[in-house]
Amino acid sequence: MVSSLEKIFRARSVAVVGASEKKGSIGRAIMENLLSSFKGSIYPVNIKYDKVFNLKCYKSVKDIPGQVDLAVIAVPAEAVLSVIKDCGEKEVKGAIVISAGFRESGKEGAELEEKLVSLAREHEVKIIGPNCLGVYSAHSGLDTIFNPSDRQAKPEPGPIAFVSQSGALGAALLDWIAATNIGMSHFISYGNAADVDETELIEFLAEDPETKVIACYIEGVRRGREFLKAIKKASAKKPVVVLKAGKTTRGAAAVASHTGSMAGSYKVYEGALKQHGAIVVEDLKSLLNASKALALQPPAKGPRVGIVTNGGGAGVLMADELESKGLEIPSLSPSTVAELEKVLPSSASTANPVDILGDAPAERYRDAVNLVLKDPNVDVVVVITLMQSPALNPKTLKDYLKRIVSETDKPIVMVAPGGSYTEKHSSEIEVEAGIPIYKTPEDAAVAVKALVDYGAIQQQISSSKQE
Amino acid sequence: MVSSLEKIFRARSVAVVGASEKKGSIGRAIMENLLSSFKGSIYPVNIKYDKVFNLKCYKSVKDIPGQVDLAVIAVPAEAVLSVIKDCGEKEVKGAIVISAGFRESGKEGAELEEKLVSLAREHEVKIIGPNCLGVYSAHSGLDTIFNPSDRQAKPEPGPIAFVSQSGALGAALLDWIAATNIGMSHFISYGNAADVDETELIEFLAEDPETKVIACYIEGVRRGREFLKAIKKASAKKPVVVLKAGKTTRGAAAVASHTGSMAGSYKVYEGALKQHGAIVVEDLKSLLNASKALALQPPAKGPRVGIVTNGGGAGVLMADELESKGLEIPSLSPSTVAELEKVLPSSASTANPVDILGDAPAERYRDAVNLVLKDPNVDVVVVITLMQSPALNPKTLKDYLKRIVSETDKPIVMVAPGGSYTEKHSSEIEVEAGIPIYKTPEDAAVAVKALVDYGAIQQQISSSKQE
Repeated sequence: MVSSLEKIFRARSVAVVGASEKKGSIGRAIMENLLSSFKGSIYPVNIKYDKVFNLKCYKSVKDIPGQVDLAVIAVPAEAVLSVIKDCGEKEVKGAIVISAGFRESGKEGAELEEKLVSLAREHEVKIIGPNCLGVYSAHSGLDTIFNPSDRQAKPEPGPIAFVSQSGALGAALLDWIAATNIGMSHFISYGNAADVDETELIEFLAEDPETKVIACYIEGVRRGREFLKAIKKASAKKPVVVLKAGKTTRGAAAVASHTGSMAGSYKVYEGALKQHGAIVVEDLKSLLNASKALALQPPAKGPRVGIVTNGGGAGVLMADELESKGLEIPSLSPSTVAELEKVLPSSASTANPVDILGDAPAERYRDAVNLVLKDPNVDVVVVITLMQSPALNPKTLKDYLKRIVSETDKPIVMVAPGGSYTEKHSSEIEVEAGIPIYKTPEDAAVAVKALVDYGAIQQQISSSKQE
Repeated sequence: MVSSLEKIFRARSVAVVGASEKKGSIGRAIMENLLSSFKGSIYPVNIKYDKVFNLKCYKSVKDIPGQVDLAVIAVPAEAVLSVIKDCGEKEVKGAIVISAGFRESGKEGAELEEKLVSLAREHEVKIIGPNCLGVYSAHSGLDTIFNPSDRQAKPEPGPIAFVSQSGALGAALLDWIAATNIGMSHFISYGNAADVDETELIEFLAEDPETKVIACYIEGVRRGREFLKAIKKASAKKPVVVLKAGKTTRGAAAVASHTGSMAGSYKVYEGALKQHGAIVVEDLKSLLNASKALALQPPAKGPRVGIVTNGGGAGVLMADELESKGLEIPSLSPSTVAELEKVLPSSASTANPVDILGDAPAERYRDAVNLVLKDPNVDVVVVITLMQSPALNPKTLKDYLKRIVSETDKPIVMVAPGGSYTEKHSSEIEVEAGIPIYKTPEDAAVAVKALVDYGAIQQQISSSKQE
């Protein structure tokens, strides 16, 4: 089944309605973004201009000579309806409505939104928005995010898709994912979800070959049952990580005034989401932390975590964070302990967390990580490095880790707390060895939990198939 | 009372025992650090050399002609005792023992440590360590942190003191505080706490005029009652933020093998710490987040938080995080709402969180923040900025905030999620307006909670004085 959203996310021709060269205008920002990255045809539409950025500018979508797959609409709310009508007549199958002034702005806006939806459905135009930041599809270069490029980073093409009911939080996550170098497939700010909602988007991303992990920020859900069904179906193919906002009384009230959604009971949501295979995270940074781990590492086959560290205190905090999340820090098998005793100095700790001491060189990491990975009591390994230590050569460590990661099917997560030196080497290890690295034990614990959760979800699915 | 620790932290002359030019050696790193920052006299001591970095090198501490306040000792464990004896005979009043191989390494080490302590007390030499990263006193330039300067950042002089039972976590926090530009007074990694322990350090820092906030990472405490008394006394003068590790079963076990301390029951610790005026945080990043807020802003007089945001979703998450921490998001007073309605567009939300919309310029922030600050229902204000928005000029915002912060006695905390553009402008606002800025609502919530907690602690103290 080809999703009707294909026309939007794989559009080869885009009309920009409200295109402009006016500085600071949204119409200009969208034009600039598309011109710099989009691989298909771009048609500016604006009754005021003959040319925009040297491209012929049309008075109406209907005047465009060739086929148009998608219209990006950034005109005042009251003008949107007639543009949709034009789109319908021109057989444009998709529209991204950036314009605000609909349901989120009160009663009149809500009425306008109802009219918009019925008009769009009548004309068979799929709408994303209104009141949204738009779409960024990294692989095709479709970029309607109107934040200026000097303020807003855009990730390279990669495996993470992000569906966000909030444009602004989406912007923040775009920046953060860009900084990780992991890359993303699609970013979709869907605003008021007047037509296309979270359910339809997840259905699309579940089938999208470029997407390996689906991350979602949701405030409320339009069609609860269908949404859960979509999550269940998607999570059988790839991890779905969900941050549900509006957990508390005041948070839920703020949801109502933000996107006009009903936040509902968080406990009910959380239970239902987990039951249908979603990985539920508690806050914004965890959405990124979990998605990064799931994009880079295989799921864990169980909850037992081995820890290798050159800082005793960091090992303690890591154990605390993992155990608080319901994960296990098992005793290592006697043979692993015996082997560790052979390769580690006598004052090292061969219990789990394995403390290889502050003077550990990369070789000691190699030996200890290999042994702990092979331990049958261990499902996932956390490697903690304080790179400030003069004894540790992070480049040598990186080379060892590249080899280690290629020889194991157990997931590895790293922690490297520190400043610019640490960040530089962390980034190299993350990109070259494909091991997700976090700055704090608490962030890494979120990542480990996500890998363990997804492992459990996969096992549940495969055992229910066997029944 | 002049603390006997004065001689260590305000030393004017330092002997480096184990001084060396050997590349990669700890003795070299300490020499380099002191030479580059210490304002007093430096005496290398090493039986092997005549000169170290062009300074005369002595065979023993006893051979140094002038007065020596402090010895930094980085020789093998078995040689430390005779150095302490020399220090005693030379009347050196303080020693920082970097050397490992004591209690943390097993039974023999524990015996050696006992001997070390009785010898030091007999000779009236105060000891920090052994098995520690040492001390960094930014104001005097005393720097014994042996991590190389290209790997390890050192903060400028400033208000935060950090006492850490873990050297490695201390190193990470040094990096992080350096990145904030807030600065620190003293960093003390006290390792095994054989002689000087957390209690004595807190007593010293409570009286230290350069320290405005005391941050501590502790695993176990030697003298529980005295420690709590010290916390209580210190917290009457300045905030004391504590991260207690070893919360969980496996964390506590890891504590035992790390510094040989007893972690004890976390619930008991947490209760006692809070009762004595400590601000207890849950994880490593929170230790920094809370300390930063307390260093920059006054405590809050109550738990009622007003929120101003240009991103609705961020406002929702902020409300969720605050309410989860037991803080309140009050309704604004009718007169504030009426005034907000005058200055904000009609589709803005004048409820709390106040959503001033994605197209908010700096002026709209100025108007809304001023009104919310003045509301009698509000004790502290959180300002959320998505700086990716093309409508917002962060430099103009900074100028307004500088003025606003100078005219209010209520604390302000900011959130600015984003990438390098956002970080650059956030840093400017933090440094110039003195408003702590965080990347996520969850981090900012920790900061707000700390300001509210310290306000409550101050009120408790002042009401108990009046009784």
